[in-house]
Amino acid sequence: MAGSTFGTIFKITTWGESHGKALGVVIDGCPAGLALCEADIQQYLDRRKPGTSSITTPRREDDSVEILSGVFEGLTTGTPISLIVRNTSQRSADYSEIAACYRPGHADFTFDAKYGFRDYRGGGRSSGRETIGRVAAGAVAAKILKQMGISVCAYTRSIGPVEADMEHFDRSAILVTPTAMPDFNADRAAVSYLEEAKKNTDSVGGCMECIVEGVPAGIGDPVFEKLDANLAKAIMSIGAVKAVEIGDGCAVSLRKGSQNNDAFRLKDGQVTKASNHAGGILGGISDGDTIRVRAHVKPTPSIFLTQQTVNRNGEEVEVNIKGRHDPVIVPRAVVVMECMTALTVLDAMLMNMSAKMDSIVKFYRNSSYEG
Amino acid sequence: MAGSTFGTIFKITTWGESHGKALGVVIDGCPAGLALCEADIQQYLDRRKPGTSSITTPRREDDSVEILSGVFEGLTTGTPISLIVRNTSQRSADYSEIAACYRPGHADFTFDAKYGFRDYRGGGRSSGRETIGRVAAGAVAAKILKQMGISVCAYTRSIGPVEADMEHFDRSAILVTPTAMPDFNADRAAVSYLEEAKKNTDSVGGCMECIVEGVPAGIGDPVFEKLDANLAKAIMSIGAVKAVEIGDGCAVSLRKGSQNNDAFRLKDGQVTKASNHAGGILGGISDGDTIRVRAHVKPTPSIFLTQQTVNRNGEEVEVNIKGRHDPVIVPRAVVVMECMTALTVLDAMLMNMSAKMDSIVKFYRNSSYEG
Amino acid sequence: MAGSTFGTIFKITTWGESHGKALGVVIDGCPAGLALCEADIQQYLDRRKPGTSSITTPRREDDSVEILSGVFEGLTTGTPISLIVRNTSQRSADYSEIAACYRPGHADFTFDAKYGFRDYRGGGRSSGRETIGRVAAGAVAAKILKQMGISVCAYTRSIGPVEADMEHFDRSAILVTPTAMPDFNADRAAVSYLEEAKKNTDSVGGCMECIVEGVPAGIGDPVFEKLDANLAKAIMSIGAVKAVEIGDGCAVSLRKGSQNNDAFRLKDGQVTKASNHAGGILGGISDGDTIRVRAHVKPTPSIFLTQQTVNRNGEEVEVNIKGRHDPVIVPRAVVVMECMTALTVLDAMLMNMSAKMDSIVKFYRNSSYEG
Amino acid sequence: MAGSTFGTIFKITTWGESHGKALGVVIDGCPAGLALCEADIQQYLDRRKPGTSSITTPRREDDSVEILSGVFEGLTTGTPISLIVRNTSQRSADYSEIAACYRPGHADFTFDAKYGFRDYRGGGRSSGRETIGRVAAGAVAAKILKQMGISVCAYTRSIGPVEADMEHFDRSAILVTPTAMPDFNADRAAVSYLEEAKKNTDSVGGCMECIVEGVPAGIGDPVFEKLDANLAKAIMSIGAVKAVEIGDGCAVSLRKGSQNNDAFRLKDGQVTKASNHAGGILGGISDGDTIRVRAHVKPTPSIFLTQQTVNRNGEEVEVNIKGRHDPVIVPRAVVVMECMTALTVLDAMLMNMSAKMDSIVKFYRNSSYEG
Repeated sequence: MAGSTFGTIFKITTWGESHGKALGVVIDGCPAGLALCEADIQQYLDRRKPGTSSITTPRREDDSVEILSGVFEGLTTGTPISLIVRNTSQRSADYSEIAACYRPGHADFTFDAKYGFRDYRGGGRSSGRETIGRVAAGAVAAKILKQMGISVCAYTRSIGPVEADMEHFDRSAILVTPTAMPDFNADRAAVSYLEEAKKNTDSVGGCMECIVEGVPAGIGDPVFEKLDANLAKAIMSIGAVKAVEIGDGCAVSLRKGSQNNDAFRLKDGQVTKASNHAGGILGGISDGDTIRVRAHVKPTPSIFLTQQTVNRNGEEVEVNIKGRHDPVIVPRAVVVMECMTALTVLDAMLMNMSAKMDSIVKFYRNSSYEG
Repeated sequence: MAGSTFGTIFKITTWGESHGKALGVVIDGCPAGLALCEADIQQYLDRRKPGTSSITTPRREDDSVEILSGVFEGLTTGTPISLIVRNTSQRSADYSEIAACYRPGHADFTFDAKYGFRDYRGGGRSSGRETIGRVAAGAVAAKILKQMGISVCAYTRSIGPVEADMEHFDRSAILVTPTAMPDFNADRAAVSYLEEAKKNTDSVGGCMECIVEGVPAGIGDPVFEKLDANLAKAIMSIGAVKAVEIGDGCAVSLRKGSQNNDAFRLKDGQVTKASNHAGGILGGISDGDTIRVRAHVKPTPSIFLTQQTVNRNGEEVEVNIKGRHDPVIVPRAVVVMECMTALTVLDAMLMNMSAKMDSIVKFYRNSSYEG
Repeated sequence: MAGSTFGTIFKITTWGESHGKALGVVIDGCPAGLALCEADIQQYLDRRKPGTSSITTPRREDDSVEILSGVFEGLTTGTPISLIVRNTSQRSADYSEIAACYRPGHADFTFDAKYGFRDYRGGGRSSGRETIGRVAAGAVAAKILKQMGISVCAYTRSIGPVEADMEHFDRSAILVTPTAMPDFNADRAAVSYLEEAKKNTDSVGGCMECIVEGVPAGIGDPVFEKLDANLAKAIMSIGAVKAVEIGDGCAVSLRKGSQNNDAFRLKDGQVTKASNHAGGILGGISDGDTIRVRAHVKPTPSIFLTQQTVNRNGEEVEVNIKGRHDPVIVPRAVVVMECMTALTVLDAMLMNMSAKMDSIVKFYRNSSYEG
Repeated sequence: MAGSTFGTIFKITTWGESHGKALGVVIDGCPAGLALCEADIQQYLDRRKPGTSSITTPRREDDSVEILSGVFEGLTTGTPISLIVRNTSQRSADYSEIAACYRPGHADFTFDAKYGFRDYRGGGRSSGRETIGRVAAGAVAAKILKQMGISVCAYTRSIGPVEADMEHFDRSAILVTPTAMPDFNADRAAVSYLEEAKKNTDSVGGCMECIVEGVPAGIGDPVFEKLDANLAKAIMSIGAVKAVEIGDGCAVSLRKGSQNNDAFRLKDGQVTKASNHAGGILGGISDGDTIRVRAHVKPTPSIFLTQQTVNRNGEEVEVNIKGRHDPVIVPRAVVVMECMTALTVLDAMLMNMSAKMDSIVKFYRNSSYEG
């Protein structure tokens, strides 16, 4: 089946396996006239690199992006933008033994069930490296949104039991802390918690959050293409995510209506809300307030303890996973969440341009339209 | 924008407003040869009726469905199935006053922001009645799945603080308890909790869950069309849902990998799992185990307490909502969740038929193919 | 399969069989704020009625449309517009005999091959009545285009050997001549040609053409979504159409480049073309000139001569078709061509709104945007 | 807008400009288990090379394809297949002068009108080189169809006034004649006609045809997704094609029904037709007979005569095109038509697998399904 394309107007198609020759993405439907160069994309790709802290296992993933099409004299042309990242080190040796058996918590078994066999090298298409295409495309979407006055920012909300203190949210911490937490104290605590887990050859889960500011009211559709429904799909499609919350999320099921409703107020003549339990979306459509999405991520399934499993010959066996794996997924998944959110919001904004007759008529009357 | 179509092969398009002449759905892509009559659909629509218990406010919603096309001599023909439910009582009077102001927690403001105005009668397209089309179509999807040996079952997991006891899950209770809980004791407790809230003219939230049994391993796609990603979108697109969990959901963020991985085992020669934290989906593809999805639903936003808001003229005002509203959404949303899940799983199974070369070649070699 | 939906942003889904309870269409993605009433649509539906001339066989098709949703206080709301036409006379008797055998030139055999059986009454879904939904939706698209200064006009170019004289194109003739020709003389000649064929219980083919004026340069996409490619699909999807030409069409294969290229010139400071062999489209994108599409339509397959065929039991038999059938399809297909063209052009114009960064940024800066 | 993706289940996305770094395609939805190597694709790409005959202008287009993903140990994995062709010679010098003005018959003006500017090097995205991605993907589709017993064959039907003699159709000639005609005599005549045109620095048009054999009855959908409608779109989307005919095409408009209907007959117990005016498609669905499609191609717009045009500054100017251009497009477009046809037929066959309830139930009962 075709499952590697995302978006309706700003449409991306990702490709590539962990240990293939390369990974990449084709962005189709990018508006013409956007200034774009490799550096715009590289800075996002660099955020998903393993890094060098004590909570990651040192290995070289030198992912440098190349623009193959769709940009001419520094500007997007409106035609497909093809982005490629070559796989430099193909360490098949590390992975050969997993060819035979199904690693618990991984997609080895389900791929075999679906396709009859699989590219077992490093997880093939179900590897975390699949997100390279998402991030490269999301970097372009984020740049477009920025020019529309919209910012998208994701960070680690918690790792295991260690929560970031949102009262003292510190955006500057996100890009410098090894955990991508917006709180230096929580980061330190989380790091020691992770070192402990790593010593026990175990892994831990965590929670990440994304906020979008500057989206005007009116974006998203009623019914199936609700903005929150598309965000839920976008975020849940990131490997290891098991839950998605909008605004106050799960907490609403314990609330009273009188506690949960956000009163509408006026601020500088603009309609605003006295609180934002809704997370910036009402009836699937943005309300002009900050959009808040949260995702819960499972612990890295690759752990170094002996595990029980089954092999391809249908025998029960024990497996001991080797190789280099981080004890937590969240810090490197944060940029992926930010990119999937940017892609979703941008596509919704482009779809929204035809919502009203008068906007359409005015758009085409606008003489500055003809090239 | 076009946001009222759901599905790729089994594709539905819903239409209709709370107080329009009718609501309905067109099902396109239903396989030919399914025995189908109005009763198959009506039994699902009846499950979303207000009911007559103490926790709903008595009002008549006599929603009877009519099949307008796509069925000939009792069998689906493969052409579009058009289903219609006429609106019998159009109580515009009850609602006229909300035309002027934006009800907190509702989509009044966002619709105006998007479209410039709205059909304010009973919430128009953002009313709970919009789900009639989803349920009518889902009933057809569920009947097809049943013939493939797949059952879909949704129920109320909790209302406010009152949780159903899953140790003593009682499927027979779901269709008879006013709360749609699978536990008679919890139902009684929830009912008195709701009566209390109702007395205080307030409302409460809750949680619903859906389990799917019989789905073979291999359904769903890697990357963007993951089965869990599409379930997340389908469920989050139901009004008032603010969070979606797959398997153990949010709990995984507090787990260790050693606790969260499900060991693979053999049972009667089939690959199975020793536990099911994953909720039947690994890497976006079904693993043959029970699929488990959970949704958290906010309290009914229509409460009978005076609320602060803004009106269409941009003035801060107070609003007192009249009309008849249930103090909780969950019990009537359960069948909607069941139907959206059935639609999502069926479409994934139809998409999956072309996953393998040998299946395709065998399919067309199969002489019994030609009509 | 799902094959009854057309369009990406302005998306329509048609349903219904010749002898079912009703036929209709759901228009999803119609911009909000369009003044719309049943009369706007009825005038288009009336153009596809059999009429009462000597070249049609008198039978009553009283197709009156009802708007079921998506319009509030005379304006479209941006939500799905459901349109329905009830089938008044269900003359199953006329058709029962064709249940058993495959009429030459009809889809009886191919429907059975695909679905295993078919609704044989009046051709079921493959009846000309299927176009009711297309025309109802096209009427809405045409009204939107008109407000953007774009006119769509289809007419009969030829019937059998009788050609309309395009030198003396007379638009006023199209709606009043029984043949829908833009030329009263050719109409008279065609009518007598048709009377002759009718006398011989035979039928004839013909050619129809559609011109679109006022489309700005820049509409349509390169590669697969070329404006001419989408027009070709839209027109070829009309039953009985066997060829589609853009601009000079087939004639270009006999041309020299020096004859076929259209020189660019200036007119009132605007770029224009000295000729229009291209039919208003270059590289799949509109060039601002008149768009010209032509379609060739086969003779009515239902003729009253004894024909050889095969029946459902796999026996060679002779069939004598009864019932009432026009000797030519073109005059009633003209409005269908006009509507499919309008739908295609409108969708391309809505898709085009996000082609340029500066247009997008300006669109959202435009304060008049917020509702 | 997004216009570079084609297909629903077997979905391709092409990218690249004439003078960019590379061109390519991503094939998403290719079934797993197909033996595939670069040679399978290269042989199709070689057919679109300029060649070395007297009717092409000698220039080196050494297009060698590389498979970047989706193939493991010689078999497709079911994940996206990324194919790339590097641009070896980037002769920007040849083209720099066309940056300023709009070449008649080209998309220069319409691209500027749409996007505000364009990559003018060699036509950028509107260059014939855009078809590299189509051909690479079509080669894969054709290989799959071959394993299903279906053959797709395109050839040149006529060049200017010189027609191939279909009475003596010689398939062996297609791949060896410079014109790709299935007739050595006609080829010789066409070549001298072309040499004459070339001497006059002019160009000529032509007609190409594609036949598909082995498609079972029942493929394609009624209404909008008719097999002929999708073929019309696929073929019309090839640059320079101005008309598409199915079966007898345009000729039907001059026919009588008694001449045009194909009688059904029995042959070895199978339903067949006594003639094939319909071109193998009835009501948009294949009838088991040979599918026949024809396309008319305009003369190469790049001619070496002085032409009148307009430049980007809005001034009327004269242009003299330099560079190397073939005097006819057809011979190299034949393989593109073959590939677009293969892509369309394959996608229709995959979509058709869910047409009937009993096929679906049998498919999933089929134990050999589970991986």
